[in-house]
Amino acid sequence: MPPQVTVYEVGPRDGLQNEPAVLSTPDKLRLIATLAGAGLPFVEATSFVSPRWIPQLADAEAVAAGLPEVAGTTYVALVPNGRGLERLRAAQAAQARPGQPELRPAVFVSASETHNRKNQNRSIAEALADIDGVVAAARGGGMQVRAYLSTVWGCPFEGAVDPGRVADIVERLRAAGCYQVSLGDTIGVGTPGQTRAILDLVLRRASPESVALHMHDTRGTALANVLAALDRGIRTFDASIGGLGGCPYAPGASGNLATEDLVYMLHGMGLETGVDYGRLIEAGALAERLVGRRLPGRALQAERARRTEPAQGA
Amino acid sequence: MPPQVTVYEVGPRDGLQNEPAVLSTPDKLRLIATLAGAGLPFVEATSFVSPRWIPQLADAEAVAAGLPEVAGTTYVALVPNGRGLERLRAAQAAQARPGQPELRPAVFVSASETHNRKNQNRSIAEALADIDGVVAAARGGGMQVRAYLSTVWGCPFEGAVDPGRVADIVERLRAAGCYQVSLGDTIGVGTPGQTRAILDLVLRRASPESVALHMHDTRGTALANVLAALDRGIRTFDASIGGLGGCPYAPGASGNLATEDLVYMLHGMGLETGVDYGRLIEAGALAERLVGRRLPGRALQAERARRTEPAQGA
Repeated sequence: MPPQVTVYEVGPRDGLQNEPAVLSTPDKLRLIATLAGAGLPFVEATSFVSPRWIPQLADAEAVAAGLPEVAGTTYVALVPNGRGLERLRAAQAAQARPGQPELRPAVFVSASETHNRKNQNRSIAEALADIDGVVAAARGGGMQVRAYLSTVWGCPFEGAVDPGRVADIVERLRAAGCYQVSLGDTIGVGTPGQTRAILDLVLRRASPESVALHMHDTRGTALANVLAALDRGIRTFDASIGGLGGCPYAPGASGNLATEDLVYMLHGMGLETGVDYGRLIEAGALAERLVGRRLPGRALQAERARRTEPAQGA
Repeated sequence: MPPQVTVYEVGPRDGLQNEPAVLSTPDKLRLIATLAGAGLPFVEATSFVSPRWIPQLADAEAVAAGLPEVAGTTYVALVPNGRGLERLRAAQAAQARPGQPELRPAVFVSASETHNRKNQNRSIAEALADIDGVVAAARGGGMQVRAYLSTVWGCPFEGAVDPGRVADIVERLRAAGCYQVSLGDTIGVGTPGQTRAILDLVLRRASPESVALHMHDTRGTALANVLAALDRGIRTFDASIGGLGGCPYAPGASGNLATEDLVYMLHGMGLETGVDYGRLIEAGALAERLVGRRLPGRALQAERARRTEPAQGA
């Protein structure tokens, strides 16, 4: 059997929170159902941050209430603090129903102090102390908790980030009880040599299964970094349908890695994801219709071109 | 000293021949001068194919006559046959001047029979026999000749291409006297496992220095394939400024790998190219102004966004 790779879809959360268009709850649920139907094992559906911070995701409770049960798909929601976890639990409890799908919390912190302060208005140490309590409470309720570590490849305010500090925080998050830490290239500056160096340090103290990569394709290097990480044994990668979340005024400039591009490469390498590539392309086309613009994902554009143009020999 | 990688710029030829906009000769020469000024060691400037085939490059003689002498930059022009080589030689002879820059010929053939017939109206065997004569004549005149081998990762008409056949043709082109064979992923379908398999076969019979890669970023996998090839010892990569050559009706769908994206990754890995990244970004911006549209290169868009927006912590 070929090795299995886990594709972790973040479009409905990380993608939509960076889109100017605010989708209706039914439209979000339609996108989420299409993604789950394509066979994605994880779909990050919403965020229980304050609606004042991210108005795009102000309907977190309604999204949580409407999540479709799809065999093999687990949903995740971001929680910034204990209040967020309480909202997630209340949303689950309010409409407990037979076959209600699992909704896991995910916590987040930055690897650079300035980014963490701008993003959370508190220090990394304060965020980690809070995460301890959130994870303990979630695990006490039988929930597994994922963690995001941002700005691992570079910080928009501080520039370079020390990989040793990254390894320290990963160990700290694992000690807090997070089952997996997703390393984020928040500003899309990472290159493969750096990825190897970071992973060599991190994997001295954490197993490959406990680490995921969340790359941005800002400079076209996302899949090269994924390849470097595959060679180091990493088997979980985050991606956003169509590359959802890119700034519409600078196409392709700040987008997440497109899920279709990731799955195309993994399948081409003989790796199994359980994802149906054709249905993923359909989900990308749906995401484009919902946000009302072309998304930057390359495979999505290529499949469109292939379907609408005759074969060319140029 | 860090390893040196050769970036081979194909924008003014491979890029412009696939753009609907036809640039004036002075505009082409301005772009070429900007690329040479950025430190690119090779700039493919035009093609001596029939103007009926590629009207965008009908001014090959005028471009050849106007090439600016820039220390460290060698120019190349595509020649489809003996007639093309004669035109190249005549263009050089017509305006021989002190310090006239070198203009090398490059020949081409496909790895798949149907693509070669559609592209050249002859069989691969016929093309190779003709290449023998062209290379002998060019070398007799003191010129080094490069070869392009198309559809190595897949053919738009036949689908899969046998890597053994690729290795055979590479050996045949080397035997004909070509100093380097550039393997092309014409339709942008390549993934890294395939790249490793192809190179493992090819490099049994050819040195890494005699092989280059010409990847398309159609599905976002170009730099992952470059990384796989770097690990196999390949040190020459083709790229097109801004990703010039993509179809404007399907942004990003058929474009070449963008030179800026390639150079960004190589420099990030500590590899030396001799190229000035900032001047390359300026060349990309110039290419966009000349063709009158946004180009798909990701680093180009990211640098634009970085210059026009405040730092963001999202």
